[in-house]
Amino acid sequence: MSLSIKDDEIDIVIGALRPDLTSFMNEWRTIFSRFHLIIVKDPDLKEELKIPEGFNLDVYKKPDIDRVVGTSTSTIFSGYSCRYFGYLVSRKKYIISVDDDCYPAKDNKGILVDAVAQHITNLTTPATPFFFNTLYDPFTEGADFVRGYPFSLRSGVQCALSCGLWLNLADYDAPTQALKPEERNSRYVDAVLTVPARTLMPISGINIAFNREVIGPALLPSLRLGGEGKFRWETMEDIWSGMCVKVVCDHLGLGVKTGMPYVWRNDRGDAIASLRKEWEGVKLMEEVVPFFQSVRLSREATTTEDCVAEVANVVKEQLESKDPMFARAAKAMVDWVKLWKSVGSSTSSPGA
Amino acid sequence: MSLSIKDDEIDIVIGALRPDLTSFMNEWRTIFSRFHLIIVKDPDLKEELKIPEGFNLDVYKKPDIDRVVGTSTSTIFSGYSCRYFGYLVSRKKYIISVDDDCYPAKDNKGILVDAVAQHITNLTTPATPFFFNTLYDPFTEGADFVRGYPFSLRSGVQCALSCGLWLNLADYDAPTQALKPEERNSRYVDAVLTVPARTLMPISGINIAFNREVIGPALLPSLRLGGEGKFRWETMEDIWSGMCVKVVCDHLGLGVKTGMPYVWRNDRGDAIASLRKEWEGVKLMEEVVPFFQSVRLSREATTTEDCVAEVANVVKEQLESKDPMFARAAKAMVDWVKLWKSVGSSTSSPGA
Repeated sequence: MSLSIKDDEIDIVIGALRPDLTSFMNEWRTIFSRFHLIIVKDPDLKEELKIPEGFNLDVYKKPDIDRVVGTSTSTIFSGYSCRYFGYLVSRKKYIISVDDDCYPAKDNKGILVDAVAQHITNLTTPATPFFFNTLYDPFTEGADFVRGYPFSLRSGVQCALSCGLWLNLADYDAPTQALKPEERNSRYVDAVLTVPARTLMPISGINIAFNREVIGPALLPSLRLGGEGKFRWETMEDIWSGMCVKVVCDHLGLGVKTGMPYVWRNDRGDAIASLRKEWEGVKLMEEVVPFFQSVRLSREATTTEDCVAEVANVVKEQLESKDPMFARAAKAMVDWVKLWKSVGSSTSSPGA
Repeated sequence: MSLSIKDDEIDIVIGALRPDLTSFMNEWRTIFSRFHLIIVKDPDLKEELKIPEGFNLDVYKKPDIDRVVGTSTSTIFSGYSCRYFGYLVSRKKYIISVDDDCYPAKDNKGILVDAVAQHITNLTTPATPFFFNTLYDPFTEGADFVRGYPFSLRSGVQCALSCGLWLNLADYDAPTQALKPEERNSRYVDAVLTVPARTLMPISGINIAFNREVIGPALLPSLRLGGEGKFRWETMEDIWSGMCVKVVCDHLGLGVKTGMPYVWRNDRGDAIASLRKEWEGVKLMEEVVPFFQSVRLSREATTTEDCVAEVANVVKEQLESKDPMFARAAKAMVDWVKLWKSVGSSTSSPGA
């Protein structure tokens, strides 16, 4: 890990959608135990959390959420969106967030992947969004910029977001998973790359890290599907938020990387049962992608908060008529920026 | 390899910059011997070629080049540019071209890489330039489109160009190679990806394949450095041609892939001695990249030939004043399109 980063500049945020985190926490122990953890319990979850000893952590439950944001707002944090509460109350520079059904992966040589170290390396080395380097990340050891790469672009830009990948159960949608029930991802691709400027991608929230100080307010719970469930393939909140983040990063000249680190995703849920719910999300992307591809922000939008507010306005103008879900998403984005500003200026220890 | 492709739809084009091709050909024998080879001898090379027995090939030398294009034009094929003569006289659908200092690589498991098979797979499966798939090539076995990828974009577009990579001696410029004389690329990245639309990259001619029928005329010898030499890091012809190809592919809705297959590049040349020559090429990219990033072709440009002619016009308009090299490049592009049309309608067996 980059020597310039101290462990206390990092919060690991875990959204707990299951009550028993014992095996999850124990599998991650060697990697997570040096860091402060924020565990946010899905407010819909009734059972008590089971968390093993030996970690430095704060747990936030429904009463904590209600206290910080009010009971009317706390509904935005249900299901996978509970992690966003952790993003909101963190005061650290970097956040790393991993779904609670993911375990540490092994690389091609069978060595345990330190996902935290790789994410922090990704965030603390420059990104190169303005020209593609065919040998992938030029800041990796043993790599460099290839012949023809302009020297003026080699210093790169600040990296704001690092998107990791998944071995075993890949992050497919319910139809794909249902069509290929036996398919597992076993391909460990030993690369990190900068996603080029103006190129959009479906950012998954399963395994990500970001510079909270720089881009924090753009990771937000806003698009909620009507029949959203408790399995990843039933959600779109991260994909929507990811579109928003990428547009904001492009506008502000920040970088987004994808690739390593991998996590090992365990099987959970019944894709066929999820098909009906998730179909709505699948159809939505046909509107969402062209929309975000066309969004251009104004020169007045110089902060992440400004940018999110502008995106929200354009969502309202252009998508509201297509589906009431979009109007709700636009409102949630505006509310989020306000919440981020107000919570950011207050203290927020749990169970106070 | 894709079953739909017959071996006789493929030409392997080799530019011979060294007289003795014995070890090169023998190393590639198991892979190349099924295919027809076009070997073009660098017209500047005086010695006789040494080529081992047992291949199906045609060799083109200076007299053949003079006969087909005329003695005044044949100078455009000197050095690495000799391969373009092979592209010109081929009548096959697909061309694969590898530098004569490259040998077959081995993958992570130590298995010999069939570069021809991988290039043809890349060219015959769709490309996805309009949205980035985080699990790389969705058409690879065991892979698919991730959650959030719009279904309407999943059929992809035709892939016109496949850019392979290099193990051992990476394709750095002379300054980088001179600064890191010991650096070798040992990272085998098990991935192919589509370079997103409107993203430019430095395309290397060391190890490429393309659909000649679709994009052939856009691979062209046009930018020649004043002090261009016989080492890769002293040339820019492929980088310039690659910019042109990518802009044309973006305009015509065609795809460009990069990644596997790898070839093993042997050490050759003295980077420090090359530094003076190549510095000119390095500086050039500061003008070339922003130029190609801003080029937009007209709706009237519906063929590759049209597109190249339009790019040539814009080069003349916008770059001519910066360096006389650009005016020569523009003229060479226009001439190339004419040559492609005239040679394409004639027969061209060597030594006739």
